[in-house]
Amino acid sequence: MSVTLKAQIEIKIRFNEVDSLRIVWHGHYVKYLEEAREAFGQKYEMGYLDMEKNGYASPIVKVDIDYKQQLQYGDSVIVETEYVDSAAAKLIFNYTLYRKKDRVVVARAKTIQVFLDIKTMELSLNHPPFGIAWKKKWGFI
Amino acid sequence: MSVTLKAQIEIKIRFNEVDSLRIVWHGHYVKYLEEAREAFGQKYEMGYLDMEKNGYASPIVKVDIDYKQQLQYGDSVIVETEYVDSAAAKLIFNYTLYRKKDRVVVARAKTIQVFLDIKTMELSLNHPPFGIAWKKKWGFI
Amino acid sequence: MSVTLKAQIEIKIRFNEVDSLRIVWHGHYVKYLEEAREAFGQKYEMGYLDMEKNGYASPIVKVDIDYKQQLQYGDSVIVETEYVDSAAAKLIFNYTLYRKKDRVVVARAKTIQVFLDIKTMELSLNHPPFGIAWKKKWGFI
Amino acid sequence: MSVTLKAQIEIKIRFNEVDSLRIVWHGHYVKYLEEAREAFGQKYEMGYLDMEKNGYASPIVKVDIDYKQQLQYGDSVIVETEYVDSAAAKLIFNYTLYRKKDRVVVARAKTIQVFLDIKTMELSLNHPPFGIAWKKKWGFI
Repeated sequence: MSVTLKAQIEIKIRFNEVDSLRIVWHGHYVKYLEEAREAFGQKYEMGYLDMEKNGYASPIVKVDIDYKQQLQYGDSVIVETEYVDSAAAKLIFNYTLYRKKDRVVVARAKTIQVFLDIKTMELSLNHPPFGIAWKKKWGFI
Repeated sequence: MSVTLKAQIEIKIRFNEVDSLRIVWHGHYVKYLEEAREAFGQKYEMGYLDMEKNGYASPIVKVDIDYKQQLQYGDSVIVETEYVDSAAAKLIFNYTLYRKKDRVVVARAKTIQVFLDIKTMELSLNHPPFGIAWKKKWGFI
Repeated sequence: MSVTLKAQIEIKIRFNEVDSLRIVWHGHYVKYLEEAREAFGQKYEMGYLDMEKNGYASPIVKVDIDYKQQLQYGDSVIVETEYVDSAAAKLIFNYTLYRKKDRVVVARAKTIQVFLDIKTMELSLNHPPFGIAWKKKWGFI
Repeated sequence: MSVTLKAQIEIKIRFNEVDSLRIVWHGHYVKYLEEAREAFGQKYEMGYLDMEKNGYASPIVKVDIDYKQQLQYGDSVIVETEYVDSAAAKLIFNYTLYRKKDRVVVARAKTIQVFLDIKTMELSLNHPPFGIAWKKKWGFI
């Protein structure tokens, strides 16, 4: 049996996010991913504040983005975030970004985070206790 | 015989680029890559304005960043950009980001761009003429 | 008889717009003003593209922002933009920013723009013809 | 006898800070001011970390910027920050921004900050003790 955790958000493109070609500058997508990830975190109790409460931060160690189509001012983008279970002490997400008006995929992305103990500022080599409890709760172990 | 084209720039971390953990927010690296790529372009005549003069834009279709270490306020980062020759109608760069003070590698990255005809807004399926001339000039063909 | 031209937009605060105190960084308000101004421009045909079509750009020469209350992640802000008629060759806007949930005023702002001829890159000392036509249309002269 | 406290920094314009007119977007100046203010703070022990150490944050309540000339990619800007003494529980700075290559004034600005007790999140109605000690040290009282 496989479990799938997903969250969706809608982001309205801002006027100042388009460049001189009138398309969204590629760097802004990193913000969209962060917002989508945080929305996932709020839905499933694995957000920025949940981690902090448990004594951890979760810095990004990898961002991969493949751009398929362009976004323009006036567009809204739907970001679907999916949790990717991993045996390693990592937090992995896949993202699909759709243009709202025609549901065309504009980008796909992946991020990987690690766990950092806020007090010692040391990297967790294993899933921290709250992470294991979280996996149990959502049926991954 | 293999040709290698590289360019280096130094970027001073800005106060407002660090987040609440006092490290540079991962999204800012996309700006560093863009600035490094443009410095490469100015050195080797393949910059934003060179392309535009030839009737092309060169949108990003892929950004991959692997974060190894963190940057803090007060740090400077050296970005080394290397051109990766490709038979496809693409512009590929590899980047190595070093912390200036200790030459530690803080990140590695890769970007891929395609060629877009500004007039028709159509994708080039082959290297545009100015791209072929450029490859000849620098010894890739 | 006095004419009043106003436009309103709603902006949802983004996760990455809050700083380490969990409040919106003050610099982001400049983006909110720009987006509000552009929404005004689209409503009343005085936007970025309208100006460009008439051969003008309209660079900002003054931004004043008074911050009254703070915005947090989860908040939405309503920006009300009001056109301020002026005899000088300037485009002046007043802004009131409300927090959506309680209608509390979080900031007031003012911007002044001038008219720049795109071809000559020279400043207009008088209202450009399209600006005068616009004023007539909306009852200011 | 009047005391004057000033600090200067140099900021190199980034490629991604210029807009489609090839001039620096006006909103970026808020970042330049913040960086200049922090450089002042580091020089005179009134920076972000000095305040935090004393239990205070210092949110911005006013930003006024007058733009005189434009900055372009390739330019460096010198920001001179001057402390403006005030009887009120406020931190006031005036800024002059020069283009490095020709020393032309490109903008003038002013910011006002208040003192916020980090523990209670309440506004200080009077200068906090560390602020009074600071004023004595630098000869303002």
